[in-house]
Amino acid sequence: MIETPPLVDQYCQGVLRTELGLGTFEAQLVRSAGAPAAGTTFFDTQTGFAVRRWCPPLLGLEPHCAPARYLARRRELGVVESGRRLLRGSGVAAYLVDTGVPGDLTGPKELALTADADAFEVVRLELLAEQVADTSGTVPAFLANLAEAVHHAAAAAVAFTCGADAGYPAVLGQAPEPPGPGEVRGAAGRWLARRAKGGAVRDPVLLRHLLWSAVATGLPLQLHTGAGAGDPGQRPQEADPALLTEFVRATAGLGTRLVLLGGYPYHRHAAQLAAAFPHVHADLGAALGQSGARAAGVLAEVLEAAPFGKLLFSSGGRRLPELHAVGALVFREALGRVLGGWVGDGAWSWRDAERVAAMVAAGNARRVYRLDERG
Amino acid sequence: MIETPPLVDQYCQGVLRTELGLGTFEAQLVRSAGAPAAGTTFFDTQTGFAVRRWCPPLLGLEPHCAPARYLARRRELGVVESGRRLLRGSGVAAYLVDTGVPGDLTGPKELALTADADAFEVVRLELLAEQVADTSGTVPAFLANLAEAVHHAAAAAVAFTCGADAGYPAVLGQAPEPPGPGEVRGAAGRWLARRAKGGAVRDPVLLRHLLWSAVATGLPLQLHTGAGAGDPGQRPQEADPALLTEFVRATAGLGTRLVLLGGYPYHRHAAQLAAAFPHVHADLGAALGQSGARAAGVLAEVLEAAPFGKLLFSSGGRRLPELHAVGALVFREALGRVLGGWVGDGAWSWRDAERVAAMVAAGNARRVYRLDERG
Amino acid sequence: MIETPPLVDQYCQGVLRTELGLGTFEAQLVRSAGAPAAGTTFFDTQTGFAVRRWCPPLLGLEPHCAPARYLARRRELGVVESGRRLLRGSGVAAYLVDTGVPGDLTGPKELALTADADAFEVVRLELLAEQVADTSGTVPAFLANLAEAVHHAAAAAVAFTCGADAGYPAVLGQAPEPPGPGEVRGAAGRWLARRAKGGAVRDPVLLRHLLWSAVATGLPLQLHTGAGAGDPGQRPQEADPALLTEFVRATAGLGTRLVLLGGYPYHRHAAQLAAAFPHVHADLGAALGQSGARAAGVLAEVLEAAPFGKLLFSSGGRRLPELHAVGALVFREALGRVLGGWVGDGAWSWRDAERVAAMVAAGNARRVYRLDERG
Repeated sequence: MIETPPLVDQYCQGVLRTELGLGTFEAQLVRSAGAPAAGTTFFDTQTGFAVRRWCPPLLGLEPHCAPARYLARRRELGVVESGRRLLRGSGVAAYLVDTGVPGDLTGPKELALTADADAFEVVRLELLAEQVADTSGTVPAFLANLAEAVHHAAAAAVAFTCGADAGYPAVLGQAPEPPGPGEVRGAAGRWLARRAKGGAVRDPVLLRHLLWSAVATGLPLQLHTGAGAGDPGQRPQEADPALLTEFVRATAGLGTRLVLLGGYPYHRHAAQLAAAFPHVHADLGAALGQSGARAAGVLAEVLEAAPFGKLLFSSGGRRLPELHAVGALVFREALGRVLGGWVGDGAWSWRDAERVAAMVAAGNARRVYRLDERG
Repeated sequence: MIETPPLVDQYCQGVLRTELGLGTFEAQLVRSAGAPAAGTTFFDTQTGFAVRRWCPPLLGLEPHCAPARYLARRRELGVVESGRRLLRGSGVAAYLVDTGVPGDLTGPKELALTADADAFEVVRLELLAEQVADTSGTVPAFLANLAEAVHHAAAAAVAFTCGADAGYPAVLGQAPEPPGPGEVRGAAGRWLARRAKGGAVRDPVLLRHLLWSAVATGLPLQLHTGAGAGDPGQRPQEADPALLTEFVRATAGLGTRLVLLGGYPYHRHAAQLAAAFPHVHADLGAALGQSGARAAGVLAEVLEAAPFGKLLFSSGGRRLPELHAVGALVFREALGRVLGGWVGDGAWSWRDAERVAAMVAAGNARRVYRLDERG
Repeated sequence: MIETPPLVDQYCQGVLRTELGLGTFEAQLVRSAGAPAAGTTFFDTQTGFAVRRWCPPLLGLEPHCAPARYLARRRELGVVESGRRLLRGSGVAAYLVDTGVPGDLTGPKELALTADADAFEVVRLELLAEQVADTSGTVPAFLANLAEAVHHAAAAAVAFTCGADAGYPAVLGQAPEPPGPGEVRGAAGRWLARRAKGGAVRDPVLLRHLLWSAVATGLPLQLHTGAGAGDPGQRPQEADPALLTEFVRATAGLGTRLVLLGGYPYHRHAAQLAAAFPHVHADLGAALGQSGARAAGVLAEVLEAAPFGKLLFSSGGRRLPELHAVGALVFREALGRVLGGWVGDGAWSWRDAERVAAMVAAGNARRVYRLDERG
């Protein structure tokens, strides 16, 4: 058995504070443009099966029990206690939490308390821009306050990201360079004049300005890739991380580190980018909970091209603590199976396998996000 | 052992009525732009090896016998009897037959008799247009008769499709929306003026009109994707189902169901579209006979992302009953191996595995095509 | 155990004649746009682990020993003796050597002597153009001398290729046809006027002229594909061999044979092109050394679509004899494992498996490059 240390989950979202019925629980399992098709259920997916395998035992039930039985037990325990058991049972030492997600969700501190773990903040750039716009009367004030807010966030957070639905891969594919100051002023003026309070940033020039402002701070920048990247908009034609190549090239040597989140079914392409560029890192976890029984197969593919020091686990957990737990538990088992198999074949030494397991489970994330210098 | 019920083959073509020599048999095994390269044979492919593994025993020979020996036995039995043994030996309860393929092929009724199975018709839209054009003197008559023919076909057939060589993925990628009536009239006029009798529809506006006419009927629409999609034209640059994303989005919520056929090597992308959009379904079978000894590997990949209620088996069989048989036999073995492996690992319960096997083998197709309401 | 004959390595480069320290050795292991990221090493990759598994025993050390120990032993033996042991220990009967790579590298003759094997030359077209330009005073002289040089090279070499960094996939994707004589004269004039001695050919018209000149000779033409294709430029957006489809179509039936090198992570797409077009062949080896413990998995994927008579091994070895050795040793083990597994499953016969092993290891390359008519 390969020993894996407690995990660092490099990307997750908060968990819902509200009790959930069967239908509302099911609706959170899968990212889809709509309700399940007639005659089908989201429980009949790898994610659904993985939840039914791993979560019932954490709540005192047998694996693979029926969804209704699981939900009844979950309500019996209450949302707080069931969340507590799920998160504490998954072997995660630290969470990096995207705080820019709408909904009644736990923030990093509450998640840390529930899970008895550390938690750090990942700041969403377009949300920062929206908050600044709410309190800035003019374009120059907006841009100055935005610069100040990004600088301030960089001191408190461990990474920046941008919402997957913002469509920035296509934007960066067309124009990877930072926009000029005049362009930015023009775009900011048009956006401020047009926006309702809280309106999302979709202007290509402003998105590029935000991403390049994050690059300038030196903090890691997490970029969403893969087929789920554009949900709920779902733009599979923007899923290929190759779209980001020119942005990757433009940011090389500036001291920033890029982390490509997700990537499935382009996970091999993301791994290849991590091999080709010193400042690029790839994500291991997002496909794992989702791919359930196939997690070891997908993990093995990611381990083909990427340097082992450039791969970082994440659960991709969002809204349901089940997804955080399943991401971690499936990953740990898949990692043990893949690396253990290579040791068994004589392809890897035991010692190397344990060293790589420790790197991808936690060590790489601690180094890239400088967690040991934080809180 | 996972039990799989008799299969529903959601896409195949008819089988040749003529006796075949070694060379003509070989030429049907693989979809290629030309004859085998000097020094090579199409028997030396996964398809060829799968035929040699599975078909000789159905004709009373040992597996893996030489092609010449197999062909001699096939001629000895005759094309009718060998077809009968091959189709009845493959465990298929119902075939959906694309009737728009040229050549001396069996139609659904004859295939049903030969195989002792049910058979249903899948209508090719561009062929319908060509038949209507043959008997329509003016543009208004053509368009009215076409509407009538599509309506009529929708009552008799279980699905519409469009020839893989029609190049519609690129057309829909550029213009997903239905064309306006004026556009359609103009395109119909130009096509009618230009066409020789029997000339294929390649006009982008007419293709879009046909596809949207099919959508309006509410019948499922099968769309070819994947690297074999454009054969014999072979346009690998049009193989990615992501090209269809905007058409998928435009047809969401209209009540139509889309089925993405084929998909290899983009089968994970097709599965991902089936996960993202409630009305999209993906095909399981087309890669399986072709990939032979690798079928379990490819099948496992398709089972990563797609909801299990959205996956449908097909043999993709065309012209040779060997291809129908191999598609079904390889699929059944691969499904048993993949799901049985997951049960063995503890990842899935036995009961879930048998339930999913029944869904993808037959139940999903019966629901999507409403076979139990048909004949 | 599947018996595999001595290999023909259809693409490699020469090996360095100079002694290497730990850092310079590490820098050659992986094709990257820069040095390893802080806190990481290129030894922590599948390539690095494969080198540490397979090479130490050839130099008398235990597998998986530490890099520093291996390098010390390598220096102790000297670059000549260690190269001799590595190449002779890898079971390769013949090398096809790309002689257009800069650096203090062994040529085919020296490699043959060191390895006790045959070696043949693969000529880089753009290098030929540069050599001709150095000694041609006018555009007409340049074009006449170039035609002569290509003709001359075709008699001595076994194949043509073009540098991966020349960016020709994008060029051919935009304009697959041969350029007209006027275009070529204009492009040659501009390039000759502009170039410093030794300046690389990047002009799209000249590149197309070179490639089509090679096609006209009837010698096989090797084309780089895949994510490493554009290194050090690294253009992942040009990695998909689908870019070459129109060039493939334009060269069909002319008597030339195309060989798609590399291909990872698009190796399935390359295999599919080899299935679709009689004159296209695909490469087996480039991903294998690089993917190390995952080689059997990648190899199995390539064996899905491609006809077995169209697949050719290569090590992709460059600069370090370790990479030539690892490519061959990893390939041989992966091939035995994949084909042996299919025999064990009953999917293939033993006899077919040994026949296919002999084809992909050596026989196909001997036929495609007509090696038995050479040297």
